[in-house]
Amino acid sequence: MAYQKGAQLYEGKAKKVFATDDPEVYIVDYKDDATAFNGLKKGTIVGKGVINNRVTNFMMKQLSEKAGIPTHFIEQLSDRETAVRKVTIVPLEVIIRNVAAGSMAKRYGVEEGTVLKRPVLEFSYKCDALDDPLINDDHIIALGFATEEELATIRDLALRVNAFMKDYLLEAGIKLIDFKLEFGKTTDGRIVLADEISPDTCRFWDAKTNEKLDKDRFRRDLGNVEGAYHEILRRLIGE
Amino acid sequence: MAYQKGAQLYEGKAKKVFATDDPEVYIVDYKDDATAFNGLKKGTIVGKGVINNRVTNFMMKQLSEKAGIPTHFIEQLSDRETAVRKVTIVPLEVIIRNVAAGSMAKRYGVEEGTVLKRPVLEFSYKCDALDDPLINDDHIIALGFATEEELATIRDLALRVNAFMKDYLLEAGIKLIDFKLEFGKTTDGRIVLADEISPDTCRFWDAKTNEKLDKDRFRRDLGNVEGAYHEILRRLIGE
Repeated sequence: MAYQKGAQLYEGKAKKVFATDDPEVYIVDYKDDATAFNGLKKGTIVGKGVINNRVTNFMMKQLSEKAGIPTHFIEQLSDRETAVRKVTIVPLEVIIRNVAAGSMAKRYGVEEGTVLKRPVLEFSYKCDALDDPLINDDHIIALGFATEEELATIRDLALRVNAFMKDYLLEAGIKLIDFKLEFGKTTDGRIVLADEISPDTCRFWDAKTNEKLDKDRFRRDLGNVEGAYHEILRRLIGE
Repeated sequence: MAYQKGAQLYEGKAKKVFATDDPEVYIVDYKDDATAFNGLKKGTIVGKGVINNRVTNFMMKQLSEKAGIPTHFIEQLSDRETAVRKVTIVPLEVIIRNVAAGSMAKRYGVEEGTVLKRPVLEFSYKCDALDDPLINDDHIIALGFATEEELATIRDLALRVNAFMKDYLLEAGIKLIDFKLEFGKTTDGRIVLADEISPDTCRFWDAKTNEKLDKDRFRRDLGNVEGAYHEILRRLIGE
């Protein structure tokens, strides 16, 4: 099916979102722009938009078909463009951690690489002006960012996504250290997985060497950033 | 009963803790030292130690006798000294909020004074070097700071303490905005309320005028700090 690309509704750090002639369908357009530390560090990762578009759609399809996860994905339209269901994004970054790394390791003084006794879910309130602060279930409900029922659905879906992805990626020689999801609410009130799943939003470590294959190469100036993104594409999709 | 005061075990910002001749009993000794912002601001509130000792013991007794809350309190020994049961402190600051104020209001961009739809529980990992970072249930369990069962007990006790104190204080013309509790584990593994309950650890607002009657007068240089502490003592104990 063809969608007529309409007005730009939003431009984020890594994607633009456009309206279409179907009020229930948006088009996401992936950019090569890379940012870190809430926009303090800026750069370009050549080809990132194309890779993130493909990796995200591939994972969304797997999650939908093999793990029964509802997602916003409709169909890929081009190298960088994908049609998605219109949703209202729940203003939470949903972070799932299997191994302590990044902000969590620093925050609690835990060594990066420490395997957690069980998966840890962590929410941040999506608000650039406040620097996406950590938030707990009680805050979320009391401040009205999600209802108790929505939060239970999000928690259940996030843990199911983690369980599926962790096993799936390990078969491709990738350890899923942690990742960030976002969920949206459809016009008829259902919670579905939205946003992206890519080396921008996941920490992927090589299962044998622990080499970082994700945006930490950009954040921490580790070099071979593009190579890592290509390697993830290759291992998942074989290209 | 008399206890022989032994070696000093610990000196915190507002209290010292001593061993006694009974291995199951400690003596807490309240100081007039006041600190804020994790020790960045320092001062003295004359008479604070005496007031906090009396207010804490009074509230602990009320909570024990009228609300069935297990506490570490044994008996007051002097103006500044109290015998308490030996516990290992669970390394969590347990914050209960009825109205958004202080760090929570700032963190989420909510106006101070906003009444929360329901009481909010918030945990911080007690670690000065890390600036007592906010922590959620998943982190606590995965990092082993408390078990799931201990956390459920702490949550239940904290909400019961809040329900009792909120009503009790309102009869004395005081709104309980938020407060911080700490819990300890006895030698036989029971979770009991420990630490203190005072204008150092609670936000108390006058029920009619919303005048602050707590350590925010010191934190924010509002003047009449000692007067506020005396006023709380007067309203609760009538002196």
